[in-house]
Amino acid sequence: MKAAFYTGNQKFEIGTCDVVKPAEGEVRLEVAYCGVCGTDVHIYHGVMDTRVKPPQTVGHEASAVVAEVGPGVTNVKVGDKVAVRPLKFGAPHPYDKGFNHVGKNLKFIGIDSAGAFQNSWTVPAYTLHKLPENLSLMHGAFIEPLAVACHDVKIGRVKAGEHCLVIGGGPIGTLIAYVLREKGAHVYISEVNENRLAMLNELGFSTINPVKENLLERIAELTGDAMIDCAFEVSGSAPGAATMTEVVNVRGRIVMVAIHGGEKKPVDLFKFFWAEIELLGARLYEEEDYEEAISIAASGAVPFEQLITQVDTLSNIQSVFETIDNNPAGMKYLIDCQN
Amino acid sequence: MKAAFYTGNQKFEIGTCDVVKPAEGEVRLEVAYCGVCGTDVHIYHGVMDTRVKPPQTVGHEASAVVAEVGPGVTNVKVGDKVAVRPLKFGAPHPYDKGFNHVGKNLKFIGIDSAGAFQNSWTVPAYTLHKLPENLSLMHGAFIEPLAVACHDVKIGRVKAGEHCLVIGGGPIGTLIAYVLREKGAHVYISEVNENRLAMLNELGFSTINPVKENLLERIAELTGDAMIDCAFEVSGSAPGAATMTEVVNVRGRIVMVAIHGGEKKPVDLFKFFWAEIELLGARLYEEEDYEEAISIAASGAVPFEQLITQVDTLSNIQSVFETIDNNPAGMKYLIDCQN
Repeated sequence: MKAAFYTGNQKFEIGTCDVVKPAEGEVRLEVAYCGVCGTDVHIYHGVMDTRVKPPQTVGHEASAVVAEVGPGVTNVKVGDKVAVRPLKFGAPHPYDKGFNHVGKNLKFIGIDSAGAFQNSWTVPAYTLHKLPENLSLMHGAFIEPLAVACHDVKIGRVKAGEHCLVIGGGPIGTLIAYVLREKGAHVYISEVNENRLAMLNELGFSTINPVKENLLERIAELTGDAMIDCAFEVSGSAPGAATMTEVVNVRGRIVMVAIHGGEKKPVDLFKFFWAEIELLGARLYEEEDYEEAISIAASGAVPFEQLITQVDTLSNIQSVFETIDNNPAGMKYLIDCQN
Repeated sequence: MKAAFYTGNQKFEIGTCDVVKPAEGEVRLEVAYCGVCGTDVHIYHGVMDTRVKPPQTVGHEASAVVAEVGPGVTNVKVGDKVAVRPLKFGAPHPYDKGFNHVGKNLKFIGIDSAGAFQNSWTVPAYTLHKLPENLSLMHGAFIEPLAVACHDVKIGRVKAGEHCLVIGGGPIGTLIAYVLREKGAHVYISEVNENRLAMLNELGFSTINPVKENLLERIAELTGDAMIDCAFEVSGSAPGAATMTEVVNVRGRIVMVAIHGGEKKPVDLFKFFWAEIELLGARLYEEEDYEEAISIAASGAVPFEQLITQVDTLSNIQSVFETIDNNPAGMKYLIDCQN
């Protein structure tokens, strides 16, 4: 049994997987596929070395097959295909108000403890969601990021017929666009990378390159001057933080999806007052978001094949991360954790 | 009949009031009292000379008695005591989504057209709300700012038992605190002016001076580590914009009441993502907010007498504005427009 270990300083090493017998309430999985998240790339760059403890196995966008169930487990049985919701809930804290998916004592499996870039992985049974028969294990690796997108759109309270702008057309932005399309919204994507733009256009999305076009004028044209009812800030950039307040109309919502680390960014607080706009933070997912993601994935609404840039084996994980670094226009990279 | 005219450059002149016969759907009022708003002080300082056209009569926190009704007016009759909701709705625009109180074509009576600092004032009948018998005309001048407070608390979706922080204990912040108290919330006020702090303490509010105390530690103590469910940013200051994101808990709401003009302020966008917090803009009021304000005022819940710093006549308006400039700790200044 193999596992990939992040050993620090942009290095992975392949070693022996620690096959953990499932304790009460736990399940041992044979991991099938695990997508590479932007967070994994941050880890690879050493940005999160205080939280991740090298050598550590990371990865959290996993599909898997149940290999062994611990005592008391009733929600899955051996052989089930599952997606993993990688949240280990901690002790409740008054600050959390019951929202344990973003609670003070939450631990994220794959960052705070061992992740899915390995053949065998033991996790709490409550993290598992069964995949329907018609969804392949390869596509099941998209459930985690698709659940992020479902959560974001839910937080944005998007209704059919609304005008929505996604700022940043990477993997999460693109999945948000698909969920918005499912809701019956009019979807526009702002993106600066020409390769991504070409791909998004091919997928049938209406795109804007704000570096080459006047975004506000284009949005006014596209919406008949109504402007945007709900914007999704997925870029994490200063221009994104400026655009988000400019594009929305009266009582417009902005969903903050991106992780704006580093220095605080200038924000137009006047516009909040003037047009009664809203900024709504969205992080991770709740149980229902996984269920919705599985339902959307099973419906065939998202052409996962077209979103996959590359699939490679666990043994080649180092080269996959190096490729990602050299190809900012890539979409989703999957690791086949069976090999 | 007298009127006060703002003539530019921190000057008011007393002149003859233009007594306007009410046209269809209009009502002529004899103005009773009109409060001085922060916006009037901005106008006095010349900051809004491109919008206000000197010489112009300003003022919009008015109580009045109906003197004459135009054709087709049925909602009020001569002799009725009223408060004025000084919004002239413009043509609907797709950008507004029906929220005409903040619509693109809204005109604000008292800024964009003649205001209440005069003996006689003619306004659309739909701007009028009848005052109950037990509410004096002097206290009726508080309905406009109290409706702002009701609107802010409504936007914040505050429920009984929640912990609320008001950042900035001036007239609007204090009225928000009273509305919050009516909702059954736990109310804390952050304020830096010692005179205002003394007054707020006398009114029975729990206060914090963030310059002298560690505000986050005090809030943690006061809330048993739960922190703030809903904060109201009323200070318009950079420290206020920093504090607002720090104090709120998971899914905490921040209501943006203040007018943050000038340069964009740095905002902690990471916290929005991390704790799924919300920033909710709130401006002016809707019809129902006036009705709620009148109901709260009539109940005796707000000790208006204690909030009045000074009442003076229209003839002395220049000296009132000069006093305000020299007394940042003052609360509400009223102009008696009958004299």
